[in-house]
Amino acid sequence: MKEERNPILGKQSIVLNEPVYLIESASVVGKKEGEGPLGNLFDLVGEDDLFGCKSWEDAESCLQREALSLSLQKAGWKQGDVRFLFAGDLLGQEIATSFGLEKFERPLFGLYGACSTCALSLTLGSLIIAGGFAERTACVTSSHFASAEKEFRYPLGYGNQRPLSATWTVTGSGAFLLAKAPDGGKRPRAAITGMTPGKIVDFGLKDSMNMGACMAPAAASTIKQHLQDFGRRPEDYDKIITGDLGTVGQTVLLDLLEKEEIDISGNHMDCGIEIYDAKEQDTHAGGSGCGCSAVVLSAYILKMLEEGVWKRVLFAPTGALLSKTSFNEGQAVPGISHCLVLESLYPDDGNR
Amino acid sequence: MKEERNPILGKQSIVLNEPVYLIESASVVGKKEGEGPLGNLFDLVGEDDLFGCKSWEDAESCLQREALSLSLQKAGWKQGDVRFLFAGDLLGQEIATSFGLEKFERPLFGLYGACSTCALSLTLGSLIIAGGFAERTACVTSSHFASAEKEFRYPLGYGNQRPLSATWTVTGSGAFLLAKAPDGGKRPRAAITGMTPGKIVDFGLKDSMNMGACMAPAAASTIKQHLQDFGRRPEDYDKIITGDLGTVGQTVLLDLLEKEEIDISGNHMDCGIEIYDAKEQDTHAGGSGCGCSAVVLSAYILKMLEEGVWKRVLFAPTGALLSKTSFNEGQAVPGISHCLVLESLYPDDGNR
Repeated sequence: MKEERNPILGKQSIVLNEPVYLIESASVVGKKEGEGPLGNLFDLVGEDDLFGCKSWEDAESCLQREALSLSLQKAGWKQGDVRFLFAGDLLGQEIATSFGLEKFERPLFGLYGACSTCALSLTLGSLIIAGGFAERTACVTSSHFASAEKEFRYPLGYGNQRPLSATWTVTGSGAFLLAKAPDGGKRPRAAITGMTPGKIVDFGLKDSMNMGACMAPAAASTIKQHLQDFGRRPEDYDKIITGDLGTVGQTVLLDLLEKEEIDISGNHMDCGIEIYDAKEQDTHAGGSGCGCSAVVLSAYILKMLEEGVWKRVLFAPTGALLSKTSFNEGQAVPGISHCLVLESLYPDDGNR
Repeated sequence: MKEERNPILGKQSIVLNEPVYLIESASVVGKKEGEGPLGNLFDLVGEDDLFGCKSWEDAESCLQREALSLSLQKAGWKQGDVRFLFAGDLLGQEIATSFGLEKFERPLFGLYGACSTCALSLTLGSLIIAGGFAERTACVTSSHFASAEKEFRYPLGYGNQRPLSATWTVTGSGAFLLAKAPDGGKRPRAAITGMTPGKIVDFGLKDSMNMGACMAPAAASTIKQHLQDFGRRPEDYDKIITGDLGTVGQTVLLDLLEKEEIDISGNHMDCGIEIYDAKEQDTHAGGSGCGCSAVVLSAYILKMLEEGVWKRVLFAPTGALLSKTSFNEGQAVPGISHCLVLESLYPDDGNR
């Protein structure tokens, strides 16, 4: 059964001959996300976006705490069962993570990949298990509309207008529990079987109100390299899922890949497009933030894999590498995208 | 020769039965660091702290670029030889890293551990190799006095007074090249043989001008757990080296460990104390920043290991998990510390 370990693949990929199991997960979101098309799939929807806290930053910490607690509870794990935590958020110096997770008292690997952080955490969280350095890890990411507006753009009280290309930062946190082996009799939610960590891709775009276009080249680069490294075609995946390109970024991504003779128009999905009803909810190009891909993964994507509706998906969150300072200093907005292969463990025909 | 892999140790440690090699490294620093006691050990000292750039943030990106380029050059590696980059800095959304490293076009794992980030990058960079997921990785971290003052405290033009407990953020970047096997005939600078990733430790201290005291409890927690997990005593290390506790934090650390009946007073060293002549250079409690432990590791600690003066050291950088926002909102300053075991490969009696 035990094959020769040959995990290094192609130019920048890793294949896991023995998969890492995504045992359990949880999603906690704000009011607006609860009112969106995926509303009734989330584990917990806040009544108001302060979650009983005094500041937006505290509220975001609370989201992380709730998401991790809930996932542990669902899996029947104690916090001590988690060997290492892999986590991050969008705020300067990652304060949502520090104050959100300190009470769990687990060794913490702090990560920053802008809105791609969910993939970054799952990549490292699963590699540490695959390498034999831990039996169980947990991955947590979050974003909050109000703390992100304050961090990157204007405080809410300023009431600025948003262009149609702008995205709406998702208020939400997703937590994921990973393990080397399935837990007891319960079927894990999915298996992680490979990944392609991404490079920074900078096309020189400077419009922080059009992050979809800024991130699309990175998504295109990672997806193209992934397919090449794994020797796969788009149709080998039921869905190829980006994080928060939104409608504008989606168009750019499909165009860029078409130029490379890669057609993913039939199976592309974007978490940012799925999470809101853009017209009804006035969210313009779609949702964004680390929380966006995390909560859609937990509530929707894993559900589809669990039920065997999808057999194999490519999960490719995207991040825009800007800060208030880099924007004010006239820098471009480079993008980054990391992707993972997630496979269904539904018994019918789990592997193709 | 190949032992059974048993890398999980004690409560939160990992032991590498097959070490990962620290092949080469480079340190680039600012003018003040060049004038300090370690001045003539650094690879490159800037003539002024803008390094020919237009902003402090750009200058910090330039430090990272120079450090990585220089280390590659010293090792005779091409940038394509590096499978993955592990990097981070102190600025909001890690812009020094994004803009510093994008031109290398390598897959990037962005990390945030405040001033402990150098240890975080070496931990993950070496585990990815030890797990068989890469042959070669590079780890880069930086800080810059002027960009950090602007990010965390006041712009330099404000000319605020600094209390004696304050530390001085080091302008510098260190880059480290790791590999599975020694390169050709050249002896690597050191071997990484184990690590203890740290938890967030929060004693409720709120004084951001006394970060040494805020971080000391985290250093004490990680060092204590490390010794317990590895079944070692302080004297099993020639030096136990913290990152940037400074003189105030050092006192707190020694006191906290003494209460646990652990005496490291004979072999403790702090990079922040070593890098400046506090009286002559008016740096108060010592140096700080991710760059501090990184450049002292590259220029001084690795030199001592390389020459066989020290056989085995514990390298334990420390981070203060605060931001301007968390400080203004009255939050405490929790600390975190990750440690690594570094061993000399000097031929005489390389292993004890």
